Amino acid sequence: MKFSFKNDYSEGCHPRILEALIQTNLSPQSGYGHDEFCLSAEKMIQYKIKSPHSKVYFVSGGTQANLIVISAFLRPHESVVAAETGHIFTNESGAIESSGHKVHGISTADGKITPEQIQKILEVHQNKPHQVKQKLVYISNATEIGTVYTKEELRNLSDFCKENKLYLYLDGARLGNALMSENYDVTLEDFAKYTDAFYLGGTKNGALLGEAIIINNEKLQEEFGFHIKQKGAMLAKGRLLGLQFQELLKDDLYFELAKHANRQAMKIKDAFQQIGCGFLSETFTNQIFPILSQDQIAQLSENFDFYVWKKIDEEKSAIRLITSWATTEEMTEIFVNHIKKLK
Amino acid sequence: MKFSFKNDYSEGCHPRILEALIQTNLSPQSGYGHDEFCLSAEKMIQYKIKSPHSKVYFVSGGTQANLIVISAFLRPHESVVAAETGHIFTNESGAIESSGHKVHGISTADGKITPEQIQKILEVHQNKPHQVKQKLVYISNATEIGTVYTKEELRNLSDFCKENKLYLYLDGARLGNALMSENYDVTLEDFAKYTDAFYLGGTKNGALLGEAIIINNEKLQEEFGFHIKQKGAMLAKGRLLGLQFQELLKDDLYFELAKHANRQAMKIKDAFQQIGCGFLSETFTNQIFPILSQDQIAQLSENFDFYVWKKIDEEKSAIRLITSWATTEEMTEIFVNHIKKLK
Amino acid sequence: MKFSFKNDYSEGCHPRILEALIQTNLSPQSGYGHDEFCLSAEKMIQYKIKSPHSKVYFVSGGTQANLIVISAFLRPHESVVAAETGHIFTNESGAIESSGHKVHGISTADGKITPEQIQKILEVHQNKPHQVKQKLVYISNATEIGTVYTKEELRNLSDFCKENKLYLYLDGARLGNALMSENYDVTLEDFAKYTDAFYLGGTKNGALLGEAIIINNEKLQEEFGFHIKQKGAMLAKGRLLGLQFQELLKDDLYFELAKHANRQAMKIKDAFQQIGCGFLSETFTNQIFPILSQDQIAQLSENFDFYVWKKIDEEKSAIRLITSWATTEEMTEIFVNHIKKLK
Amino acid sequence: MKFSFKNDYSEGCHPRILEALIQTNLSPQSGYGHDEFCLSAEKMIQYKIKSPHSKVYFVSGGTQANLIVISAFLRPHESVVAAETGHIFTNESGAIESSGHKVHGISTADGKITPEQIQKILEVHQNKPHQVKQKLVYISNATEIGTVYTKEELRNLSDFCKENKLYLYLDGARLGNALMSENYDVTLEDFAKYTDAFYLGGTKNGALLGEAIIINNEKLQEEFGFHIKQKGAMLAKGRLLGLQFQELLKDDLYFELAKHANRQAMKIKDAFQQIGCGFLSETFTNQIFPILSQDQIAQLSENFDFYVWKKIDEEKSAIRLITSWATTEEMTEIFVNHIKKLK
Repeated sequence: MKFSFKNDYSEGCHPRILEALIQTNLSPQSGYGHDEFCLSAEKMIQYKIKSPHSKVYFVSGGTQANLIVISAFLRPHESVVAAETGHIFTNESGAIESSGHKVHGISTADGKITPEQIQKILEVHQNKPHQVKQKLVYISNATEIGTVYTKEELRNLSDFCKENKLYLYLDGARLGNALMSENYDVTLEDFAKYTDAFYLGGTKNGALLGEAIIINNEKLQEEFGFHIKQKGAMLAKGRLLGLQFQELLKDDLYFELAKHANRQAMKIKDAFQQIGCGFLSETFTNQIFPILSQDQIAQLSENFDFYVWKKIDEEKSAIRLITSWATTEEMTEIFVNHIKKLK
Repeated sequence: MKFSFKNDYSEGCHPRILEALIQTNLSPQSGYGHDEFCLSAEKMIQYKIKSPHSKVYFVSGGTQANLIVISAFLRPHESVVAAETGHIFTNESGAIESSGHKVHGISTADGKITPEQIQKILEVHQNKPHQVKQKLVYISNATEIGTVYTKEELRNLSDFCKENKLYLYLDGARLGNALMSENYDVTLEDFAKYTDAFYLGGTKNGALLGEAIIINNEKLQEEFGFHIKQKGAMLAKGRLLGLQFQELLKDDLYFELAKHANRQAMKIKDAFQQIGCGFLSETFTNQIFPILSQDQIAQLSENFDFYVWKKIDEEKSAIRLITSWATTEEMTEIFVNHIKKLK
Repeated sequence: MKFSFKNDYSEGCHPRILEALIQTNLSPQSGYGHDEFCLSAEKMIQYKIKSPHSKVYFVSGGTQANLIVISAFLRPHESVVAAETGHIFTNESGAIESSGHKVHGISTADGKITPEQIQKILEVHQNKPHQVKQKLVYISNATEIGTVYTKEELRNLSDFCKENKLYLYLDGARLGNALMSENYDVTLEDFAKYTDAFYLGGTKNGALLGEAIIINNEKLQEEFGFHIKQKGAMLAKGRLLGLQFQELLKDDLYFELAKHANRQAMKIKDAFQQIGCGFLSETFTNQIFPILSQDQIAQLSENFDFYVWKKIDEEKSAIRLITSWATTEEMTEIFVNHIKKLK
Repeated sequence: MKFSFKNDYSEGCHPRILEALIQTNLSPQSGYGHDEFCLSAEKMIQYKIKSPHSKVYFVSGGTQANLIVISAFLRPHESVVAAETGHIFTNESGAIESSGHKVHGISTADGKITPEQIQKILEVHQNKPHQVKQKLVYISNATEIGTVYTKEELRNLSDFCKENKLYLYLDGARLGNALMSENYDVTLEDFAKYTDAFYLGGTKNGALLGEAIIINNEKLQEEFGFHIKQKGAMLAKGRLLGLQFQELLKDDLYFELAKHANRQAMKIKDAFQQIGCGFLSETFTNQIFPILSQDQIAQLSENFDFYVWKKIDEEKSAIRLITSWATTEEMTEIFVNHIKKLK
């Protein structure tokens, strides 16, 4: 079997989660998110983000989180601004539009959007009410291509949104990886400060499934449970979600796992740099996009699984490599050795 | 702590499922339902229902299953017929209407609907196109109040639907309990034969979460995956769903668990009958609705948790008791002893 | 050609409207409702209802008005309460559900709903968030079966809605007929006082098309134009709607036409009463529902068009007769003569 | 009062329509589009497009036509491809997304899209079912910026759509102007041949309101009436729509009016060309976009109304001029004289 660097959701979950499931299995709990684990995980998150008034809701996946948040926050005539690489713009099978809302795409080099780009969209939509009204800005951090927002970028977006009465919502499917990236100047509590809502991703960082939606804007918390239920996202055994977050947040396991994933990616990145290889974008999280010759790609493919991401020219393509909590040091070492031998 | 008869989803899952999770945890699998467990569970179901052309899709919960199936099957002007006690009519926070479709409610004594009742709805909706067009009949088995459809009832509904070009869709949140009810004359393969689609419930029968949607009508299978994704129901680690069904179906564990739950309910029912107690409806599955005096309810409440379901008169109310795979013989025995001592 | 009593929209429009169209035809006007006629008609309505803060929006038809109002007012998890005879419940091809909202139907004898009936619906929907949240009460006046709400009934509904944070919305497709019914104790300004919004129907009272939506609750006026545009209801030549209302409201033509229609219906009602005929419901507007033998129905059908409304028994059925601004005194007289000769 | 070249819907309607309204006003007709005028207008259209199997439906406006057609044709996971200048993409307040469907925008210089551009969108959406499925191509003719599709372009699009199982739908708000443009090689019947559906615009070519939706693909005609009703677009007095199209199509008045409008625009275009003025795009219909200095714009603004469309540089902007059936030869002459005197 080949080692896989295709994604960060190929394995089950961190063993500590299985252990916790076994320990709590027969404890009877209230259904639909009213179990003690959800309540405890919510408190842990409120404490970590230093925002006791924030509310936390656990759902099963990222598309689900995005769909529920956005459709709950917006009125029918309001629209969303996102990068064209944004998960909601291109990889959620039209979930947001299916709930009635237009998503404006911004073309970017690095997956990140700026106030200036949003401003341009606002400017060409002044013919009211013939044009939709922009109301929510969607960003991902880390982005879908592995880059991260700096504190200044985040604060500028937050200021711009407040001035323009736009909600700022952050998709944190890989928020752990962003936070644990080298020299990162943003903390978890900054997200509570700068966004109206964000989600902390579990699925891609060691959980079987689960994302924690965190709503900081109190007005937007109102009756949110109805939307979770109506979209079919309220698990009878919500305990499964709460318990996993409780376990991941205990002793900062969540951050350890993200750090581990990043470290493996950075070792691989180093190895590619040492052989003089370029990259599609500069990333410090668990995704890297080295540019290789067709021959090099063929050589690596013999022993490893990964996606060929983008054709650069007739000779070269960028590949995508993703590491995770389940990528062992050994796998990384073997891969690095293969990279060094590339011709 | 009181023993609980409030519902069948208070505990985690059957231990064999935890065991299977541990065994398979580090095996890398394709995402989004293309893992080997989903494929194997689909084959097991196709075999059990003797319908190799049926397709199986795994999702997380009942509301989600109903929402995806119904919104995928119907065009915008088509509506659903259901019992007023039907889960979609009253307990899914308007999920079906949220996807654009009217649900016509039929008032019933026992939670089951008949061709005659559907016929009446068709008759008063002949003013086309000013009235919606009925296109799908939704039934639950066991129903939300514990009753079951006989083979004849099911066949009659199926015939009626075919004659009237209506889809027949069955909510099987508690299908195991229906199948394992005493002297039941319907088999699992009958559901493949008589319905266009149905789902086999996991959450209420020993799984952590998970329902298996089974589409028998080949025309309705077309591009179904898009709808699962668009509604946010496609788990990255779909393996979690497939694996549980694989384990539940192995050695018929699924049916054993349902049988066990039913048996506990029937023992409790017997105990109530022996003290001369009446019931709101006659059930043979894992739900019973004994009618008790306020005083008797108070006595039982001291040691057991359950819902008071419906006020009968000033003196009496029906309570709802639900048993499950997790209800031990010991719990049942203790409860029965308390019943016998009721004054 | 037979005289028709089938409905109140068989002819074009009152001749004064045609005259006004001719007079103003070549005057260039701003599009999309910003023409001088819409502005003037809005002022006339604000003045007549003594509610200068109310906003007026003109759309083309009743289903459109209901759809836009309700979908603009509600959040996704909120539902509507209506009589089962309500136009939105049964005759709008699921338009409200199509916009995502459940409509709860109340069975009534006379098409009118009471606070007690709404209260019962609220009571059985306390399982939040598993059940939808009731937020808007829809009533019609005159109702779809010709009855009217008294001032006390209207005030009670209004009080009840305020206490329960429900919006009260009134469908006034035949509001003119209600207002002009004999001894009616409600005035146009009462509707501004007691409802959050209502519409004043033009199509069924002399206009070619057009309904005036009047929003009294200022919070609900916000950004309403977007919803009109998004639903495809914003006419480029909105002048056509504004001009008609301006003309209908000038010299109270609107009320004259409704009064005329009611008078014709009452003359016919008298004639039926004189021959000892009963009625399905007691009405004082432009709809009557006499109960006739099959033979009597056959006799009248030879010379007049109308709908057979409801079978009473093997012998008898109720027919529906509708008069309008276009029903001439002569038509009525001829019809009355035929009634008198019925065997 | 200034003469206006702001749009083609500032005045009422062609006098012949008013005359027809007067003539037919008191003739009782069936409601909801079953009147004799709608039936006759449908036959006239079927005859003119030489497509007796096509079905014709009359609605009130362009956004409404687009919304109903697209939402009726598509399943929930299907999307639309359009030019970024397309009316549905930018000027319908999100109506298409509101019905659940994503619209992919193509950036164009001239408002027209090509098979190659559509092909690129198909290519980047191969990750099924994570991405929406493209199913309908929306084009406008004349486009929103006055250009027209040649027969070859139209045929190529049609062929491409058939090969790729895409529906081709044409927005004909200004189809008359396209057909009457100089040397145009496409005929009305070509649209029946090359598209699955298109609409023939009335509002911008002499009607008070009204667009004729023509569905050529028989499969898509099925139950279309439900969608018209559900979207609130079925006028009780549908006669108003049918009658206008009957009158416009009689003696080819419709084409005369479009020709007249085009001719006025071309005279103005000539005048600008004679003074050496450039244009934003080359158009042969009733819209022109001359590029003028700020000073020239100021001079014209003193006596004429028009929109400044697009800033070209610090010195110059393009203005938009639209002519219509109501633009008199005299107005044009006066305007031309002012152009000649521009400094």
